[in-house]
Amino acid sequence: MSQMTQRRNFQVSQDQPGALDLRMQVGMRSLNVSPGSWGVEPVSGQTLDAFFRPRNVAVIGATERPGSVGRTILWNLISSPFGGAVLPVNPKRASVLGLKAYPSIREAMGEIDLAVVATPAATVPAVIAECADAGVKAAIIVSAGFREAGPSGVELENRVLAEARRGRMRIIGPNCLGVMCPITGLNATFANAMARPGNVGFISQSGALCTAILDWSFREAVGFSAFISIGSMLDVGWGDLIQYLGDDPQTKSIILYVESIGDARAFLSAAREVALSKPIIAIKAGRTEAAAKAAASHTGTLAGSDEVLDAAFRRCGVLRVNNISDLFYMSEVQSKQPRPGGPCLTIVTNAGGPGVLATDALISAGGELAELSSSTIKELDRILPPHWSHRNPIDMLGDAGPERYAKVVEIAAKDPASDGLLVILTPQGMTNPTLIAEQLKPYAKLSGKPILASWMGGADVAAGEHILTRADVPTFPYPDAAARMFQYMWRFSYNLKGLYETPAAIEEPGEGSSGSAIVAECIRVARERGRTLLTEQESKRVLTAYGIPSVPTEVAASPDEAVERAIQVGYPVVLKR
Amino acid sequence: MSQMTQRRNFQVSQDQPGALDLRMQVGMRSLNVSPGSWGVEPVSGQTLDAFFRPRNVAVIGATERPGSVGRTILWNLISSPFGGAVLPVNPKRASVLGLKAYPSIREAMGEIDLAVVATPAATVPAVIAECADAGVKAAIIVSAGFREAGPSGVELENRVLAEARRGRMRIIGPNCLGVMCPITGLNATFANAMARPGNVGFISQSGALCTAILDWSFREAVGFSAFISIGSMLDVGWGDLIQYLGDDPQTKSIILYVESIGDARAFLSAAREVALSKPIIAIKAGRTEAAAKAAASHTGTLAGSDEVLDAAFRRCGVLRVNNISDLFYMSEVQSKQPRPGGPCLTIVTNAGGPGVLATDALISAGGELAELSSSTIKELDRILPPHWSHRNPIDMLGDAGPERYAKVVEIAAKDPASDGLLVILTPQGMTNPTLIAEQLKPYAKLSGKPILASWMGGADVAAGEHILTRADVPTFPYPDAAARMFQYMWRFSYNLKGLYETPAAIEEPGEGSSGSAIVAECIRVARERGRTLLTEQESKRVLTAYGIPSVPTEVAASPDEAVERAIQVGYPVVLKR
Repeated sequence: MSQMTQRRNFQVSQDQPGALDLRMQVGMRSLNVSPGSWGVEPVSGQTLDAFFRPRNVAVIGATERPGSVGRTILWNLISSPFGGAVLPVNPKRASVLGLKAYPSIREAMGEIDLAVVATPAATVPAVIAECADAGVKAAIIVSAGFREAGPSGVELENRVLAEARRGRMRIIGPNCLGVMCPITGLNATFANAMARPGNVGFISQSGALCTAILDWSFREAVGFSAFISIGSMLDVGWGDLIQYLGDDPQTKSIILYVESIGDARAFLSAAREVALSKPIIAIKAGRTEAAAKAAASHTGTLAGSDEVLDAAFRRCGVLRVNNISDLFYMSEVQSKQPRPGGPCLTIVTNAGGPGVLATDALISAGGELAELSSSTIKELDRILPPHWSHRNPIDMLGDAGPERYAKVVEIAAKDPASDGLLVILTPQGMTNPTLIAEQLKPYAKLSGKPILASWMGGADVAAGEHILTRADVPTFPYPDAAARMFQYMWRFSYNLKGLYETPAAIEEPGEGSSGSAIVAECIRVARERGRTLLTEQESKRVLTAYGIPSVPTEVAASPDEAVERAIQVGYPVVLKR
Repeated sequence: MSQMTQRRNFQVSQDQPGALDLRMQVGMRSLNVSPGSWGVEPVSGQTLDAFFRPRNVAVIGATERPGSVGRTILWNLISSPFGGAVLPVNPKRASVLGLKAYPSIREAMGEIDLAVVATPAATVPAVIAECADAGVKAAIIVSAGFREAGPSGVELENRVLAEARRGRMRIIGPNCLGVMCPITGLNATFANAMARPGNVGFISQSGALCTAILDWSFREAVGFSAFISIGSMLDVGWGDLIQYLGDDPQTKSIILYVESIGDARAFLSAAREVALSKPIIAIKAGRTEAAAKAAASHTGTLAGSDEVLDAAFRRCGVLRVNNISDLFYMSEVQSKQPRPGGPCLTIVTNAGGPGVLATDALISAGGELAELSSSTIKELDRILPPHWSHRNPIDMLGDAGPERYAKVVEIAAKDPASDGLLVILTPQGMTNPTLIAEQLKPYAKLSGKPILASWMGGADVAAGEHILTRADVPTFPYPDAAARMFQYMWRFSYNLKGLYETPAAIEEPGEGSSGSAIVAECIRVARERGRTLLTEQESKRVLTAYGIPSVPTEVAASPDEAVERAIQVGYPVVLKR
């Protein structure tokens, strides 16, 4: 929690000085982040392999109607081979898109791992029942019309879930775009295209954001190990998928678009375990709505659930970003470059101003400028004009050509004090942005250090940007954004250290009972007396029980006693009359 | 100042409780923001028309050498007619690029308003002397090698300035890219291209940032009324140019890239006057360097000069942005759309998630969602499918086509509770991003309300983005950035109210002397005693003198007196032994 937030959480309410709102506790409990619930739990049910590496796939609701979801799914499955057979299920047709169709899943031949269901909501419980009977291991339900359609939809969901449980089936959806596994070639979605293979696992609760990020990923040459639209999370939720991608050797980082947490315990347990080895980056929509709710509460002082979530994310090693751009940028960076081993960035630029702005962004985000070693400076002196900056950012001056760029990057990358490089180009009179990009291609993979680039401008730099993008150097329109991403990458590594911290056993000295017992007792007493606020004394006992220092305060019964105590202990005394 | 900053400024230093560091005052003084210096001052010297609307222009140092600065400037001036003659000055040639050349400015015929000087630094004092003798009104010195080259360069600058003063000439530069006035057609720069005409006045202290923003402006169809590389500010500075653009009817907003303030009094006076009628948006490089300096000071508590600048900007109505992207975005928005009359944005989208993220960004930045009137909702009910969101953001659902987009925008724009529109598109299965953009063109100019767009994705949305851009609808890759820009636009209007605030006359009750006299006295006493820190009592007097409330505290000489006073007044007493 930031200092600001902390201050707010423990702020004193106006009408009852020193009172700590009980609902902070309630808020934490509703997210299952209360102490003791942090252990790693086994994810229920069987593996999710059937979703990503199925042998045969049935499409239930496969049609030829142009523009229909059923046709698009079938077409996507056919046109991107995944090593198994595609079986359309449609009682009204003998074949669909040239494939033999089956009247029901029962009649379909061979072992079917995965069913993709695109029939109307009302028919889905029966469809899943049939799947369960036929031994289908998993289903993706893309159909909408469940809980979002009201109580009757909830009832349908319950029936679907009961059938799935009976058959030990796992379900993704309903109301989702589907699942892609670019590594195996599986495209079980109704998106317009197939993602490029890569190492980013992307899970989104918004199908529309999936299609936007997919379209964007082609231009930016970003590849995915898995691309999952998670839908309403009737069965498979964040915890299952994070765990699965954590175990998946193809996945090197996980990017989440989150609208609701669902089973918080499963989410946080899985995240906490997986984040130890793979970065998890999340954007959570609706943070201000939650803040507004908190503000509407009568004290205005409790930790909104979004703030608790924020703390929980940090505690389990999830890096939270607040801008969509950062989510897109992080996808690109994670897919293309290694994470830095430290916070020290070297900036190489042909113009002072953009270098300074990138430095501002780096420092503001908590990063550092690498200090150039004297041998690096000497080497640079040999090849740079005398007026170069002689420090980091390395300003090579406005007439820097392709060779100068390449040499400086080579020298700067070798400096052991540098944990990564940001190369900035502004299109000045003598600059050839395209040729410079070409010259930098050999440096796209520095050993163990990330390299990022910002080719600033528009038309003149477009070709160079494209070259770098294809060479797996992430490019950013603005160098300050690039510097921020470097710092995000480092912060992720750094945050991991926090995960290994083990809180000390909590004992209130002299009382002989454990911290949580003391807190439970305080809250019990307050509840018994019908209070929702703790007194100042109780609040301070709670804080002390959790090892949070607070100003020692004692109540004096009379002015004389106050003075006596004050003189004894030498600290401020609150006089009560 | 943000709450956070305020808190830091007046934080109590560890070793001397309650002490207020004198250097806060010093810091303010160095920026000339001390009370009383806020009045509007006449800008020294004559009008700057000669830079933007010259009759004849001489190019001193005009050559034919390919790639040279002198050739590029000459070529730029010729190839973009500005209504006057271009006269190359070069003692070694009879003609340059087909134009008759003159051996010196003396020999050049006709009245010359403006000289563009591209000769080596050492020759410039003599060149300016000749210009002064010939009655040239203004000079742009693009040559480098002045103060940035050390003491000899400073000496050169002094000589240049003396000659200019003698001839009542104004100077822009040295060490700059030059000046463009797309309205008159003048391109007196060595940039690769001429800016599009428009209504944004852009002033930059980095030539490289000029070239980057210029290149970008073509792609985004952003137009400028003036495009100025300000250089080292030997003569003409921020104050002059802000004042000039403030008076220029073509300029509707002013965008600044600032590395150093220079004459702070002139800057702030001009900004304060001009910001009343035109938005001024600034990015200041080097904010963290300043903060680092402040942190290195032994107390760690004083207001860094950057924080003072921040407050000064706000006080004079300058909107400060911290990301380059925001500077680019604001240029685009200001060049294309009116400012909103209120904080209420209506979001129209074909997907829930991006709408929620845009709402988060809007609310976080201090904006509001417009509340749809019941008649708007009724009208929308008539044309939208039943499951639409029934509130703002208006989620028209994933199958929204061009007609639905157009109708909803038309209805939403009419709602008087809405101050502006953000239209979001994600490329879903049924979506035609290009056709939808075409359909929205008629709504590019809503009366008095801005309309912004975010076509999310990459390849699929590129054509639609281009159509909107050319139709003067600013497009943003991410909808949350668009929402933030809307709020920036509104905040600018809102900030203006603050400029009309007149501080009440400051009197410390019962003391009968004015606030500033009290403060001066406190500081005088502290200085006399060789202190650089005020005592707690003095600090509180200073705060009170400026009308800042502080906790009333009194010093008691004995425990008894303390108790007595405490009982009398009923507030905490600090016991000192």
